[in-house]
Amino acid sequence: MTDFPKRFYQRLLLDYDHKLNVEGINGKRLAERLAKLAGIGLTPNNGSSRMGFSEEERKAKKLVKEWMKEAGLEVREDGAGNVFGRLEGKENDSPVVMSGSHLDTVPNGGHFDGTLGVLLALEVVAAWKEKGYQPTKPYEVVIFTDEEGSRFNGGLSGSGAMVGEVIREEQLKLIDVFGNSFEQVLEEAGLTVDGYLSAKRNLKEIAAFVEVHIEQGKQLEKENLPVGVVTGIAGPCWIEVSFLGIAGHAGNTPMNDRSDALTAASQFILQVETLPSKVSPSAVATVGKVHVHPNGVNVIPGKVTLCVDIRDIHKETRDLLVDKITESAKQVASDRGISVEITENFRITPVPISIQMQGKVMKAVENHVRSSHLSPSGAGHDAMIVGRHLPIAMVFVRSKGGISHNPMEWTSLNDCVIAARVLKDLVEDLTM
Amino acid sequence: MTDFPKRFYQRLLLDYDHKLNVEGINGKRLAERLAKLAGIGLTPNNGSSRMGFSEEERKAKKLVKEWMKEAGLEVREDGAGNVFGRLEGKENDSPVVMSGSHLDTVPNGGHFDGTLGVLLALEVVAAWKEKGYQPTKPYEVVIFTDEEGSRFNGGLSGSGAMVGEVIREEQLKLIDVFGNSFEQVLEEAGLTVDGYLSAKRNLKEIAAFVEVHIEQGKQLEKENLPVGVVTGIAGPCWIEVSFLGIAGHAGNTPMNDRSDALTAASQFILQVETLPSKVSPSAVATVGKVHVHPNGVNVIPGKVTLCVDIRDIHKETRDLLVDKITESAKQVASDRGISVEITENFRITPVPISIQMQGKVMKAVENHVRSSHLSPSGAGHDAMIVGRHLPIAMVFVRSKGGISHNPMEWTSLNDCVIAARVLKDLVEDLTM
Repeated sequence: MTDFPKRFYQRLLLDYDHKLNVEGINGKRLAERLAKLAGIGLTPNNGSSRMGFSEEERKAKKLVKEWMKEAGLEVREDGAGNVFGRLEGKENDSPVVMSGSHLDTVPNGGHFDGTLGVLLALEVVAAWKEKGYQPTKPYEVVIFTDEEGSRFNGGLSGSGAMVGEVIREEQLKLIDVFGNSFEQVLEEAGLTVDGYLSAKRNLKEIAAFVEVHIEQGKQLEKENLPVGVVTGIAGPCWIEVSFLGIAGHAGNTPMNDRSDALTAASQFILQVETLPSKVSPSAVATVGKVHVHPNGVNVIPGKVTLCVDIRDIHKETRDLLVDKITESAKQVASDRGISVEITENFRITPVPISIQMQGKVMKAVENHVRSSHLSPSGAGHDAMIVGRHLPIAMVFVRSKGGISHNPMEWTSLNDCVIAARVLKDLVEDLTM
Repeated sequence: MTDFPKRFYQRLLLDYDHKLNVEGINGKRLAERLAKLAGIGLTPNNGSSRMGFSEEERKAKKLVKEWMKEAGLEVREDGAGNVFGRLEGKENDSPVVMSGSHLDTVPNGGHFDGTLGVLLALEVVAAWKEKGYQPTKPYEVVIFTDEEGSRFNGGLSGSGAMVGEVIREEQLKLIDVFGNSFEQVLEEAGLTVDGYLSAKRNLKEIAAFVEVHIEQGKQLEKENLPVGVVTGIAGPCWIEVSFLGIAGHAGNTPMNDRSDALTAASQFILQVETLPSKVSPSAVATVGKVHVHPNGVNVIPGKVTLCVDIRDIHKETRDLLVDKITESAKQVASDRGISVEITENFRITPVPISIQMQGKVMKAVENHVRSSHLSPSGAGHDAMIVGRHLPIAMVFVRSKGGISHNPMEWTSLNDCVIAARVLKDLVEDLTM
């Protein structure tokens, strides 16, 4: 181990409560594995750079494959580079229960995003092995390729290939950030386009997919809970709104003779703040990006362009919110006698998690912590794309300060091990 | 004449109503002079670039000095480069009535801003000469140096020197846009620092100053009036307000757990829009410049910095408005549990115009047009600095589309001549 992974390991163990090691789950093993993976693609800022389809991603997969074999799993890699480690069930012809995540990272990212989900899925098997437990249904630990998408500004490549959401012509058009074609990138990774397309699995063979992921938010920290139940994966819709007023001299234009694009935009922004609660408790809408033209201290703004990010876990309420926000922009402009232009940049379908699955996760969570905190996932995950086709469950683990995609990303080993125990109970329930 | 001045002249004459030529006022002469000055410092865009203290400004002054002499004025230039053309009054020891403006322009500016005020002051004398009229009090046509301030990012240099608002040490610190010291710039213009400081006049010798200027706004156009009465020159106060919230992921932060700096800023911007009318009908306040941090579509803004431009022609109401706006920023931040930082960038004292002077201008205006439109000047003028020390009057002339500081600046010759007739009546009243 180089110096950083060793320090990372020591930091994980520093406040670890060894009493959390029960039923074969081992915090020290988990910390060792997190630290070893942290050493692959380590950046000068002690962050992690393991881009999808890179040498670093392959090295990380190779290491986890060894641990899979150690745990007694039968390992196979598909044409998209997805790795499956299979444990036979007592009824081995039953559809498989899968759990895992990804090992690629954003450039200079953290050491928990994705990685933790893979290692916890594996920790369940390691624990079973120590106790000689065999599930009824088969169980697979999965490593999906290129979830983050920093290679092609896309993402969810491996999970997309597994569920068959890949179109040859579209894939062949892709050019990566270094200017290489999709074919070239696959070739360098030892893959082929035909192989990539063959990664589609017969979905009848899969019973469910479970993903454990760091929260990347601050709700669990605020509630002082190590883990939480994910209610669905919110699909974002981005709209760009331009208010077009008339620029004028700030000194020579009376207040009652203005067509100020910024006061219109401000009125709209305040409405965007109040509208989500009118459609759903999990809906959110955010104006994060604003450009004012000409942006001079003594010039009444003639044009303001802003982007609205609108999300919910239910398609109906998310789309209703998009409509209400669009309507509000038009109403504000009309009330003020100015123009507005609205463009929809994209709209991704949200993936709700079934009440049955949420109930199973709650049951597993409440075996280990005092209460279940339910929240939507605002960010996309492999579970989102899988969830369009198969039953899914998601467990969030507390993230320090909500920081992610950053070397500062941190989740305590205590929280990781509690999540392992929850996942083990959940998977035992699902494979029963 | 080069091609453009000729076309400019022809355009002025195109729709000129020659019946407006009365009592010696001559639209054709005025158009010729406007066109000749338009040829000095002409830019490729047919704009005007006569920076303060430049060769072009001096050439324009030289030409007007010749016309002054032609009109029988005694011409003298002070140490700041200000030009005075004096006509003796019947009671020549009485304090003088002055009228004029400036001949310098912003880079690629228009052909009316400043120039028109100088030429109209001169047109009054030319008209008197034709009719053999002599005023009781003496009258001076003035050309102030460097009003626009594009040289030293300042302005009002000549009028400031005449009223004695100049501090040697401060002037010596100035560096122009080409990197030259104030001394070097004066030297190139044939001036000296001592001479510049000696430009201060004995203010007891001056009875009043009248400035005619294009409106640089759209109020007169809206009212369909050629000229208007200026009620005062608004003094701007600029404050910078930063709202400091907490940045967060747009998807993973519930609406009720946000510290969004932009929604706070929006609430404040809407209050800034409503507050001016609560203090004074002439008050205005504008948020023209906004910066959102980090300005990412899917990031709740952590910080928003904006500038507020606050103006009124009365110091008391302007200052009251600054207080109300500052209070509002603090209240919005406090209501939302976020921080706010407020910095005052500058505060210039407004210069109201006395009711007596406004009355005299109204009388002169109503000799020629159906009604008097009263409005403050939002922009600064030589009359502002002179008005801190002496009685002043100001007349606005309609500007097409309110456009100024731009080659598109336009005022019809009809409006110019009506303004000349108003000025003549007003000056005859003041010199009586």
